[in-house]
Amino acid sequence: MKPQQKLLNSVDRCVDEALEGIVSSSGCLSLLRGHRVVVRADLEALKGRVALLSGGGSGHEPAHAGYIGSGMLSAAVAGGVFASPPPASVLAAILSLRDAGVSGVLLIVKNYTGDRLNFGLAAEQARNRGVAVEMVIVADDCAFDQPSKAGRRGLCGTVFVHKLAGALAEEGCPLDEIVSKVTEAVKGIGTLGVSLSPCSVPGCLPSFDLPAGEMELGLGIHGEPGIKRSKVTSADEVVKTMVDHMTNPASQSHLSLKSGDSVVLCVNNLGALSCLEISVVTRSAIRYLEGRGVRVARVMSGAFMTSLEMAGVSLSMMRADQEILRLFDARTTASAWPNLSTVCISGKSYILDPPAKDMQETSHTEGPLSDVMRKALEAVCSSLLQRQEELNSLDRASGDGDCGNTHAQAAKAIQEWLPSHIVPGCPGQLLSTLAGLVQERMGGSSGALYSLFLTAAAALLKDRSDPAAWANAMHAGTDAMRWCLDALCPAVEELGRLTTAPPGGHMAILQAAVEKAELGAESTRDLTARAGRASYIATVHVTLPDPGAVAIAAILRAVFEALGGQK
Amino acid sequence: MKPQQKLLNSVDRCVDEALEGIVSSSGCLSLLRGHRVVVRADLEALKGRVALLSGGGSGHEPAHAGYIGSGMLSAAVAGGVFASPPPASVLAAILSLRDAGVSGVLLIVKNYTGDRLNFGLAAEQARNRGVAVEMVIVADDCAFDQPSKAGRRGLCGTVFVHKLAGALAEEGCPLDEIVSKVTEAVKGIGTLGVSLSPCSVPGCLPSFDLPAGEMELGLGIHGEPGIKRSKVTSADEVVKTMVDHMTNPASQSHLSLKSGDSVVLCVNNLGALSCLEISVVTRSAIRYLEGRGVRVARVMSGAFMTSLEMAGVSLSMMRADQEILRLFDARTTASAWPNLSTVCISGKSYILDPPAKDMQETSHTEGPLSDVMRKALEAVCSSLLQRQEELNSLDRASGDGDCGNTHAQAAKAIQEWLPSHIVPGCPGQLLSTLAGLVQERMGGSSGALYSLFLTAAAALLKDRSDPAAWANAMHAGTDAMRWCLDALCPAVEELGRLTTAPPGGHMAILQAAVEKAELGAESTRDLTARAGRASYIATVHVTLPDPGAVAIAAILRAVFEALGGQK
Repeated sequence: MKPQQKLLNSVDRCVDEALEGIVSSSGCLSLLRGHRVVVRADLEALKGRVALLSGGGSGHEPAHAGYIGSGMLSAAVAGGVFASPPPASVLAAILSLRDAGVSGVLLIVKNYTGDRLNFGLAAEQARNRGVAVEMVIVADDCAFDQPSKAGRRGLCGTVFVHKLAGALAEEGCPLDEIVSKVTEAVKGIGTLGVSLSPCSVPGCLPSFDLPAGEMELGLGIHGEPGIKRSKVTSADEVVKTMVDHMTNPASQSHLSLKSGDSVVLCVNNLGALSCLEISVVTRSAIRYLEGRGVRVARVMSGAFMTSLEMAGVSLSMMRADQEILRLFDARTTASAWPNLSTVCISGKSYILDPPAKDMQETSHTEGPLSDVMRKALEAVCSSLLQRQEELNSLDRASGDGDCGNTHAQAAKAIQEWLPSHIVPGCPGQLLSTLAGLVQERMGGSSGALYSLFLTAAAALLKDRSDPAAWANAMHAGTDAMRWCLDALCPAVEELGRLTTAPPGGHMAILQAAVEKAELGAESTRDLTARAGRASYIATVHVTLPDPGAVAIAAILRAVFEALGGQK
Repeated sequence: MKPQQKLLNSVDRCVDEALEGIVSSSGCLSLLRGHRVVVRADLEALKGRVALLSGGGSGHEPAHAGYIGSGMLSAAVAGGVFASPPPASVLAAILSLRDAGVSGVLLIVKNYTGDRLNFGLAAEQARNRGVAVEMVIVADDCAFDQPSKAGRRGLCGTVFVHKLAGALAEEGCPLDEIVSKVTEAVKGIGTLGVSLSPCSVPGCLPSFDLPAGEMELGLGIHGEPGIKRSKVTSADEVVKTMVDHMTNPASQSHLSLKSGDSVVLCVNNLGALSCLEISVVTRSAIRYLEGRGVRVARVMSGAFMTSLEMAGVSLSMMRADQEILRLFDARTTASAWPNLSTVCISGKSYILDPPAKDMQETSHTEGPLSDVMRKALEAVCSSLLQRQEELNSLDRASGDGDCGNTHAQAAKAIQEWLPSHIVPGCPGQLLSTLAGLVQERMGGSSGALYSLFLTAAAALLKDRSDPAAWANAMHAGTDAMRWCLDALCPAVEELGRLTTAPPGGHMAILQAAVEKAELGAESTRDLTARAGRASYIATVHVTLPDPGAVAIAAILRAVFEALGGQK
């Protein structure tokens, strides 16, 4: 078994290079030379205020450097992947903040042995140098039923703490007051994760084995396995299991949550779950919480505290009163903080009625042209149905072999429609109606193409229906498809002559147009595929005519003959 | 072969549920009933201005609903996963915007056959209803060497177009002017992707096979395979291959880019690449572009236009003048737009020197206590080295068996330090020095623990070194470790009596403390593991004493005996 292939330059330098990538792409961050420490580039802005420092192992990006900015962290210290940073770097970060003239430094530390030790040690060393340093430990893990000596781990809920403390520091709150407010808020924060895959530290094998179709509940953010393994069920059921476990009063590490409480919800992508899945899980979580009478005040959904490429999600909740929401909503420039609205999620109606009028066009009346148009349509349908297999077989050579079938679908739809409907005397109305029919019943690209052509043409046949209007309509239809089937163009060019044709000369022009269309279809024999997915990949050479072009020529011939033209 | 397990409720409803998740968690979006259409909840804000509508297949989240907000899109239409949305939904979106009183609607469409057809058709239908509609086609794909009839595909560069057009619409720019400015900007946009894995549409098998260790270059965003396959190399080399291909004038679809040009760079996670890798690739891209003389003006790095859970990355570049940067920097409330600074990336220095002073403590002078402290240290080192194997063997029972080794490392470090250094007469200074030594040379949690203890204790032995000061220092040291080894506590309690001991009574108290420590160590035989990774997972019962506690008792005994106490 080999370590998973990753897109890196070197296992040893990946953390340093990632930090360099984060800092050099930001514009408002700096790196401390010789340390894995990221600080605000505008440290002078912190003068006289409390600075916030957080950090921990790497592999949790965007944590923690992504949370640096006004209104959140002042600096972040990174360790190796999933390893606590050395105290010397934490101390260097604290002393840089002190040199910027801050009134004190708050360390926000996740409850893991290494982080507590290393941050705690640096804090002692900084105090020995006269810096006012305090430490808040975040322990938001809701996994454990039974008491654990090391206590609850610090997980994604830490991001809430960065935000609250950041807003307080930004408004000039003194260090001791921030500590007491944040310590209180931490009690109302809980997190639980679930994963469909392990993750692997660069250069190492995966952190645990997980058979396909199983999931691990209650795991930490360092790839350590969880407390329970089960089959992956539906998103709704997984969310219910998670929230019930998180809030179960019988569990030692539960978050107390009752009906009527308000919460901020964070749906955190642990790495490789698709954004589609995260959105589905977000919906499940909001619905389930609301079903339990909990008011979901704000929701953040995305990647906030990852475990490399773990395909999983964690839910964090923070009980929130007005003051907590005020701090949560406060402005920050931190790059990983999302653009959130300050509207309460629960109770907001988010379904809008679509415009009712205008979606359907108006009713029709018959006219002198109704009869000939009905005949032409009947002829077109017969012709397409008769040639169904021929078109399919042409299409099999270059496409998916359903050109005849899709045209037959359109023909049948029109045949079904004809007996029970008036054929409007206005050709523009007829073409619009046909556009709707083929769009709905023909399907695929062909349906959309015909519909596009007919809709554009219809606009020019609303008020007029003389030969020149038809010529313009055909031109407009083709123009709307600009980029598509060239086979139609020669016929349309020919039809352009209708504009200036002498009385009685129209049928000759129509005949010429039909012949041009047939020639055009024939000329597609050596062209490369023009549309559809295959055309992006390679140049597919075909030696048969394009079945779509053949169908168009057949339609034109049927119309021509229905108007009395020569067979 | 089974389809990949996903965290969803149903394959059929996943798109609708994802949209519901996005809209219900946002606070400023609405869903059109009966359509997969997301619109701004404050449509009235658009009155008299141009509205922007985009969309396409689902599976590209946060595109496109994530880009709705003031300064970006007004609405977005979603199709099924990787499928173009139906024209009726596009039309419903356009008519909703019209009903809000907008002056016109711009459709921003990615160059894929289905999207062009369906958006084009709805545009025609809307025009027939009197709405001023224009369409901009984004074709930023740089994959193809050879001309492709379908043209360049629309990829992640579309997000740039949303931003520029959004900023123009926000400042009241008329529709035709937005179209002409954006059409010009599109010519300067290029995108290329690379992936280490395929992705799979829910319920389907993966879009293509890719052996481990290989990568696919130039793929689209619908899981369709790319133009070239090769071994995965380093991030630097992959980026070089991508940028060279994108800008190669011999390639039909290249982006023209020369030294001196300014660009906006977007490093887009196609889904499942870790954020760590994305940051490393971002660094590579900035460096390589700068090496070619290109000025990187802005960088966005994250997930902007995904392909479900594809483990890959795309690079998008947009040539940028001052006007383009002004529009790029303009404010937006769209949830998926990142918090970016308006500082030019290239040319900015981002390395800061750490504070030089204070990282090392000041120089020392000898004093009356120097001699006895040197002797105590020598005794401690001998004792620890002598008991190395015993400590290792105790540790093997419950830990990783290196407790003796780590203590021996500390002992050797102190033994090396002693001959060449003054032992400062101030005990506070000595403890600080020892803290630095063990932190640097002992390593691991033990090093940090001892260092923490010594640092906190040192603070109380700076100005005084009477027995009461030592008692307080031991207490402060233990306090700093609060949550850690209880085995030290009984000894410290005993030492507390030093504060009130009669003259000559100190040695008896010391002896009692040593014995309490030994008893404390012995009493750890039946305790559960207290720290370290194992303690989070399960309760590990040990029947041997804790090796760390035994080491501490040994240290205390060595000090006691060095002071002349009974063996």
